[in-house]
Amino acid sequence: MRKVDPEKHAARRQAILDAAKACFAKKGFHQTSTAEICAAVGMSPGNLFHYFPNKQAIIGAIVDQEGEETAAFFRDLGARDDLYGALVEFMDVVLDLAGDVDFASLALEISAEAGREPTIAARVGRNDRELRAALEQLLTDAGARGQVDPTLDIADTATWIAALVDGVFNRVAVDPDFKPENHHKTMRTLLGRYLRPQA
Amino acid sequence: MRKVDPEKHAARRQAILDAAKACFAKKGFHQTSTAEICAAVGMSPGNLFHYFPNKQAIIGAIVDQEGEETAAFFRDLGARDDLYGALVEFMDVVLDLAGDVDFASLALEISAEAGREPTIAARVGRNDRELRAALEQLLTDAGARGQVDPTLDIADTATWIAALVDGVFNRVAVDPDFKPENHHKTMRTLLGRYLRPQA
Repeated sequence: MRKVDPEKHAARRQAILDAAKACFAKKGFHQTSTAEICAAVGMSPGNLFHYFPNKQAIIGAIVDQEGEETAAFFRDLGARDDLYGALVEFMDVVLDLAGDVDFASLALEISAEAGREPTIAARVGRNDRELRAALEQLLTDAGARGQVDPTLDIADTATWIAALVDGVFNRVAVDPDFKPENHHKTMRTLLGRYLRPQA
Repeated sequence: MRKVDPEKHAARRQAILDAAKACFAKKGFHQTSTAEICAAVGMSPGNLFHYFPNKQAIIGAIVDQEGEETAAFFRDLGARDDLYGALVEFMDVVLDLAGDVDFASLALEISAEAGREPTIAARVGRNDRELRAALEQLLTDAGARGQVDPTLDIADTATWIAALVDGVFNRVAVDPDFKPENHHKTMRTLLGRYLRPQA
C-alpha cells in the first residue's frame, strides 16, 4: 500500500482549489467541468477523485477556506493597539477584494450556488456568523478602549457593517461605474462618523 | 375585429404580473411554469400569450414596474420640506420591503435571473442607475437646505446608500437572525451620523 505524504497531499489539494477558483471565476461554477479543473491542475480525473468526490465538494472546500482565512485575518487585527484602525483596514481589504475581478466573480458564484444548494448555504451562513462574531469582538474591545463609541449596540452595528460588506460586492455586480478602489475615502468618512466616540 | 378596451387590458396585464410575482416568490422563477401563472390568474395559456410572449417577458415587466414605482416614490419624497427625513423614510420602506418575505424572495429571484440573462441585467442596471440618480438629487437638494452635510461627495454618498440597500436585502438571504423590523433605530443612527451637517 502506497503511503500518503501529508505535505504533498495538502499541496496538491491546494493546487486543485486554486485551479478551481480560477475556472469558477472565469466561466461560472455550472459551466466549469471537472475535466477542465483537471486540465488546469495537470491531474487525471481519477486522481482528482482522491481529493474531492465532486465539484460540489470543491466549492464547499473553497467556502471553508475563505472562512478560515477571514478568521486568521481577524486574529491578527484583534492584536492591534488601534482597533478602530484595524476595522478600517478590514474594510480596505473588502474594497481590494471587491476590486479583484476574479475574487468578486467567485463571490457571486458562491452566492448563487448557496441559493441552490443547502449544504453550500449552510457553509456561507457559518462564515457569515463567524464574521459577525469577529466584528462584535473587535467593536467590543474597541469600545472598551474608547476607540469606538461604547454606547453603540454591538450586535446591530456588526450587522450593519456586514451589510456594507455585502453591499460593496453587490455594487460590483449591479453598477458598472462602481470602482471599489476609488471608495476608500468615503468608506473612512462613513465609518468614522458612525463609529467614533461622539463629541 | 374585436376592439381592445385599454383599461381592461391594463387590469388583466396587472393581474398577470401580480399572480406571477406571488408564484416566483413562492417557488422561484425557474420552478414556476406559465401554466401555473395561468391557473393563478384564471386565464388560458393562449390568452396569456396576448399579454406576454414568455416568462422572461413577465419578469422583465416586473422589473420595469418596480423601477416606475421607485421613481414615483422619489417624486413624492422630493416634494417634502424635510429631505433628510424623506431619505430616512425611504430606508424605512427598504427595511419594510426586506421584512416582507415575498418581496425579499422575489428580489433574490430577480438578482439571480439578472446574473443569467443580459436583458434582465440591463433592466436591473437601469433601475439601479435611476435609484442612484434619485438619491443624488435628494442629497443635493437636502445639502442646499442644510439638512445634510453639503461637503459630502454626492455621487459617492448615493453609492454607499445604494450599497446599504443591497446589503439589507442580502442580510435577509444570508443571516436567519436578521429581522429588518428591529433595525430602524440603528439605521437612523448610522444615517444621521453619516449624513447630517457636522458640528
